[in-house]
Amino acid sequence: MNKKVKVAIVGYGNIGKYTLEAIKQSEDFSLAGIVRRNPNEEQPQELAGIPVVGSLGALKDVDVALLCVPTRSVEKYAVDALSRGVATVDTFDIHGDILELRRTLNDVACKHKTTAVIAAGWDPGSDSVVRTMMEAIVPRGITYTNFGPGMSMGHTVAVKAIEGVEKALSMTIPVGTGIHRRMVYIELKEGYSAGEVIQRIKEDDYFKHDETHVLIVDDVEALIDMGHGVHMTRKGVSGATHNQLLSFDMKINNPALTAQVMICAARAAVRLSSGAYTLPEIAPIDLLPGDREQWIKKLC
Amino acid sequence: MNKKVKVAIVGYGNIGKYTLEAIKQSEDFSLAGIVRRNPNEEQPQELAGIPVVGSLGALKDVDVALLCVPTRSVEKYAVDALSRGVATVDTFDIHGDILELRRTLNDVACKHKTTAVIAAGWDPGSDSVVRTMMEAIVPRGITYTNFGPGMSMGHTVAVKAIEGVEKALSMTIPVGTGIHRRMVYIELKEGYSAGEVIQRIKEDDYFKHDETHVLIVDDVEALIDMGHGVHMTRKGVSGATHNQLLSFDMKINNPALTAQVMICAARAAVRLSSGAYTLPEIAPIDLLPGDREQWIKKLC
Repeated sequence: MNKKVKVAIVGYGNIGKYTLEAIKQSEDFSLAGIVRRNPNEEQPQELAGIPVVGSLGALKDVDVALLCVPTRSVEKYAVDALSRGVATVDTFDIHGDILELRRTLNDVACKHKTTAVIAAGWDPGSDSVVRTMMEAIVPRGITYTNFGPGMSMGHTVAVKAIEGVEKALSMTIPVGTGIHRRMVYIELKEGYSAGEVIQRIKEDDYFKHDETHVLIVDDVEALIDMGHGVHMTRKGVSGATHNQLLSFDMKINNPALTAQVMICAARAAVRLSSGAYTLPEIAPIDLLPGDREQWIKKLC
Repeated sequence: MNKKVKVAIVGYGNIGKYTLEAIKQSEDFSLAGIVRRNPNEEQPQELAGIPVVGSLGALKDVDVALLCVPTRSVEKYAVDALSRGVATVDTFDIHGDILELRRTLNDVACKHKTTAVIAAGWDPGSDSVVRTMMEAIVPRGITYTNFGPGMSMGHTVAVKAIEGVEKALSMTIPVGTGIHRRMVYIELKEGYSAGEVIQRIKEDDYFKHDETHVLIVDDVEALIDMGHGVHMTRKGVSGATHNQLLSFDMKINNPALTAQVMICAARAAVRLSSGAYTLPEIAPIDLLPGDREQWIKKLC
């Protein structure tokens, strides 16, 4: 029998909840506990019987910490876990900063002889694997990644962090050839002016490169649906042969897929040698449970 | 500067020709020569200046042998190359026998401290990678692989090997949910009866599991087009969340894509530790030239 992968969920927001569900469905995993900021407050029903603690150090025998924290807190929590010799999985999603995070966490992971699988959601993440395959087998040409329509969790968190925003939803609308419109719906905090808050959102790093519309609404909750999608295309050349056409599509529940990718990455984390890895650096078969031969027989 | 990957093309049929084209387009490759059965006969124009020999042993400093030979000859040529310490890439395409080939070549490769990348076309091959990703991120559900319409090279070679067949074309027609019709067009050899030859084709391992129609035609050449395609779908469950919908599509020139995948596999072959590998066992980034960081920046 293979040993189970012992994980801790660090952060129990939206992704944390779906990660708990995914762990319950994965026979090769066991849950050591959940790390929350306020472990002594009353916990939701579904956490009955699960250790809830304030720090990873309060849990024993953790193989992998699943970092279900906002992107901008990933590095801090990852460094803490790796320094304890605990492997990490994160869903860091600022594409342009992945390389830097990889360098930082690679140093810490190597020093403590453990592993970090970074940017392991669906984009960056499983989509990155598909883009890598597309680039490899059609080496000349253009790949377009078209997201949505759907709620961007990273962008929504970013809006919520902006002064004057009470509640927020950021929808990503594909307008073709990898271009997106951001439709942002917010409830204002009392005493703030719409104009100023809207300006702050439009100037944020997450939004300033895209066409962004901000709408003030009475009830953000009533608009929220976790469905999302992607349509990736590549048209190009294999060898000297033009017009090779590839596409990859998903219509999915966003946090459920993100959580499942994290589970996959955790399997790889306990198999890899020390260091930090993005998903394209991992053999896809290492994302699956059990031994290789059964999967080769089924999937090749 | 990175060293170029020195390759030999073994077999110069349809795939061999496209492989030569792909090598010419790949700056990180150099061609040591081509191994053919009749090296002393007059060679086609495009081989001017390229060493054409009768055995791999007649070429020096070969890193990887690209085995562009019929599936049923792969093992023989792979064992020969691996025993010389030369890594191999093949496009072995009998799905049910891949595991056995992997075991055989793994032993030989390990013994001679080299690598074999097997079943490295597009299916099995790059499609296997996509199926693996789909299985990992949506672990419960059904994947359907729908091929075509297009010429199946493996099936066409199989028909040509049948007694009484002068020329042949086997078309794969998708009828949905992973079920295919085989449309086989043949020219009969003189003196053979259509009925007997058709019976032999329908009883062949390649055809006996599918609905197969064999048509006798005057001119097979006039029917041949190298376009092919695949439509892969998976509908299933991530964590506890149902209705996750994934699909992957290609409309491609078949031998051109196969040749390009072989080039990708050859890059991995020189990076991997000793043994035999299918594509899902290889980090996708190792299919690309140059160093990792440039690709992480571009593709993650």
